[in-house]
Amino acid sequence: MEGSTKAQTLQRLAIAEGHLKRIKKMVEDDHYCPDVIHQSRAVQAALKKVDEIVLHGHLHSCVLNDIHGPKAKNEKLVEEIIDLFRQKD
Amino acid sequence: MEGSTKAQTLQRLAIAEGHLKRIKKMVEDDHYCPDVIHQSRAVQAALKKVDEIVLHGHLHSCVLNDIHGPKAKNEKLVEEIIDLFRQKD
Amino acid sequence: MEGSTKAQTLQRLAIAEGHLKRIKKMVEDDHYCPDVIHQSRAVQAALKKVDEIVLHGHLHSCVLNDIHGPKAKNEKLVEEIIDLFRQKD
Amino acid sequence: MEGSTKAQTLQRLAIAEGHLKRIKKMVEDDHYCPDVIHQSRAVQAALKKVDEIVLHGHLHSCVLNDIHGPKAKNEKLVEEIIDLFRQKD
Repeated sequence: MEGSTKAQTLQRLAIAEGHLKRIKKMVEDDHYCPDVIHQSRAVQAALKKVDEIVLHGHLHSCVLNDIHGPKAKNEKLVEEIIDLFRQKD
Repeated sequence: MEGSTKAQTLQRLAIAEGHLKRIKKMVEDDHYCPDVIHQSRAVQAALKKVDEIVLHGHLHSCVLNDIHGPKAKNEKLVEEIIDLFRQKD
Repeated sequence: MEGSTKAQTLQRLAIAEGHLKRIKKMVEDDHYCPDVIHQSRAVQAALKKVDEIVLHGHLHSCVLNDIHGPKAKNEKLVEEIIDLFRQKD
Repeated sequence: MEGSTKAQTLQRLAIAEGHLKRIKKMVEDDHYCPDVIHQSRAVQAALKKVDEIVLHGHLHSCVLNDIHGPKAKNEKLVEEIIDLFRQKD
């Protein structure tokens, strides 16, 4: 992963981890259930943003730089993208 | 769109359309609400499969064939993939 | 389904059906693939809105009116809601 | 939150937190990007399961126990369910 993408990803993962700790605290302190779910959704949304950043970096380096690589490698890239796409359903 | 992808896409869209007509009939005939929602979900899943087929064809032609095109075109491809990815959230 | 919910549901399903027909036309006319996917996503979003309307009507009649029904019926309602919730993942 | 639901929720949140720590390690160690995304998806799926458990507990206590409460309270419950449902899109 390219330097700034890596730094951004690590920072966002650290924020998500802190958020998750606070949700545990909310559950321990008997916060209202829908509020707990809302916070859990916020972490999920934050992780989706992380996925997007990681995928963006991956596509940039694969599609834009390694583009003259062997055909088999490009086939693999396409299959990976479709696979990531499919799993979101 | 390449010939067999196009045929497959059109066939699946026709099936989804038929399914949608049957859901309208279910609503008219006062079927049980959760059953209506289940059928609507099935159509949504079918359309996601269509998206996947269309994206697959698109990536194949873009990434595998047009790969020696200008850099700006490849940048556009990456942005489009990310955009499609983001909208699934 | 209560009258106005039913009318609203049928109207939205008819709009989704029309939209789907136009997507078939786009595919036949070789529109750009990402544009086809965007339109398919719009139909999926419209169907999710239909689900929401149908669920809302269902919950209103079940939770608010039949609320003094037997416990087993309420258990079934809770399981159905969880089931609908789960399938969105 | 009822005792066993609370214990189960806290345990799953702790597992998700441990998983998230391992993803940070993967990024630090330059693991392959699609593998990072797969692991992030696994955490998101685990959090969705947490949401389901929390919602299940909430509905059980609201729909099954507080069912003879004032109508306004039931209206609020329905709106909350729809709201949680909508946000998954």
